[in-house]
Amino acid sequence: MTAASLSLKAALSQVGADVDRRLDKFLAIPDDPRADLYRAMRHAAIGGGKRLRPLLVFATARLFAVDRDCAGRVATAIECIHVYSLIHDDLPAMDDDDMRRGKPTVHKAFDEATAILAGDCLHALAFEILADPLTHPDPFVRSELVLDLARSAGPSGMAGGQAMDLEAEKSTFDLPTVTRLQAMKTGALIACSVEAGAILGKVPPEGRVGLRGYARDMGLAFQIADDILDVEGDEAAVGKKLGKDEGAGKETFLSLLGLDRARAQARMLVDQAIQHLQHFGPEADLLRDIARFTLERDR
Amino acid sequence: MTAASLSLKAALSQVGADVDRRLDKFLAIPDDPRADLYRAMRHAAIGGGKRLRPLLVFATARLFAVDRDCAGRVATAIECIHVYSLIHDDLPAMDDDDMRRGKPTVHKAFDEATAILAGDCLHALAFEILADPLTHPDPFVRSELVLDLARSAGPSGMAGGQAMDLEAEKSTFDLPTVTRLQAMKTGALIACSVEAGAILGKVPPEGRVGLRGYARDMGLAFQIADDILDVEGDEAAVGKKLGKDEGAGKETFLSLLGLDRARAQARMLVDQAIQHLQHFGPEADLLRDIARFTLERDR
Repeated sequence: MTAASLSLKAALSQVGADVDRRLDKFLAIPDDPRADLYRAMRHAAIGGGKRLRPLLVFATARLFAVDRDCAGRVATAIECIHVYSLIHDDLPAMDDDDMRRGKPTVHKAFDEATAILAGDCLHALAFEILADPLTHPDPFVRSELVLDLARSAGPSGMAGGQAMDLEAEKSTFDLPTVTRLQAMKTGALIACSVEAGAILGKVPPEGRVGLRGYARDMGLAFQIADDILDVEGDEAAVGKKLGKDEGAGKETFLSLLGLDRARAQARMLVDQAIQHLQHFGPEADLLRDIARFTLERDR
Repeated sequence: MTAASLSLKAALSQVGADVDRRLDKFLAIPDDPRADLYRAMRHAAIGGGKRLRPLLVFATARLFAVDRDCAGRVATAIECIHVYSLIHDDLPAMDDDDMRRGKPTVHKAFDEATAILAGDCLHALAFEILADPLTHPDPFVRSELVLDLARSAGPSGMAGGQAMDLEAEKSTFDLPTVTRLQAMKTGALIACSVEAGAILGKVPPEGRVGLRGYARDMGLAFQIADDILDVEGDEAAVGKKLGKDEGAGKETFLSLLGLDRARAQARMLVDQAIQHLQHFGPEADLLRDIARFTLERDR
């Protein structure tokens, strides 16, 4: 294990613990009939996942000397959106998955109605966290964070990409369409995570161009790696059912490019992502390590 | 028909047309694989419903001389949240309803996956609209609007109330618990609609006490009327299946109080709601008419 991947692992586990600690407070189980709802949110949100998006928030925030507590709250909000999307994607009417992050999915551990509502609650909670003055004293920053996250999560971002993914089972998508689908479905929230650190640092939009380029290329590389894991990964390590894209007859980067070209494309995208960070010094090494990690990960 | 109810009908239809026009723009069908997703959102959101929440936004905004376009955007955002909640509540795993607003529910007209995603998209879109500088030039106002709506929609508001409602089928709730359930499930978003008009008018929280009291009492009266409609209403007029609460064995205001006491309670709440507006002059007549309307409505 290289020094870089060691420090990345340490950063991931530190960020995971930070987000878990915050979620534990936000999702304290109330002594009323909503207890199961909160248990379901905790089941899905606490103690699992790669915490890639929170790490990206922290890694970018550190470039601009952002307060760690602000970054932690924003990281938690974005993770709430990610977790809600996983809960809803796993539902029987969607991907119909029984396992997620090595545990039963929410509708399996609880029931479908609770899963739908747990997702809806985490969705709202994300915006409640961002708009709270505790997240940042400047209301302009809070409002920008909300706008960026809402766009990244909605019909032009994550949820829109998920809708395209549903269509992918019925149509045959070409490479530009698959690229757009993935840029929306997973790329938008990854880009939002990177951008949020810069918004917290009050970097104006024109100062975020390099970071946006980094996020775009890293997000695509991440998705290609995901497609490869879906075919070549180990279910126990990944913690969910694999081989589903092929079973559903969906075109992916892998089916369109083949394994060798897909791997080469991912490597090229990682190099490009790192290139976008050229104006930053060693303070951006964590972002560089994260980009490289997308190729090495086994889950 | 009294002059008041005539002007209320006119206001409702004017607000309905305003919200429809805005939704028509926000939900323009894209020429890509998301077309069905947008069709589903339009099916649920455009051209139906009482538009009570948007009317409340306008009725309060007029007290503080708020710009009509700002109020219209906020009204549309809150209606997006209301419509998303209807789409998800109608799902087979939740209330399993086939008809809504006189039309097939979204999962009937499209499919369940599209219904889940259409709800999720409207949820995110609401916050995107509120955080947009077009909604209000002051970021503090935008951020307050987001915070209020997120709290009203999330686990301490609407979605939390819906989770309690699920439990109501399994437990026997007493009157205080049913009151709290309804204050969350329908009251929170109604209160948010009233409060949003005041936030747009930059009224500080201590200046909103009367309006909050109005919203609380009016929201409960509205829900009691809803319970009465569920038993005594005409399905064709209401546009959805009725008699469901009794079938599900849920305690309601009606089952706990009986018809006569429930009616008296609703009347008392409407009087109380109007009392809370005593510091306002005729500019609050629309809010007073809305409170009275909760008792007269047939859908």
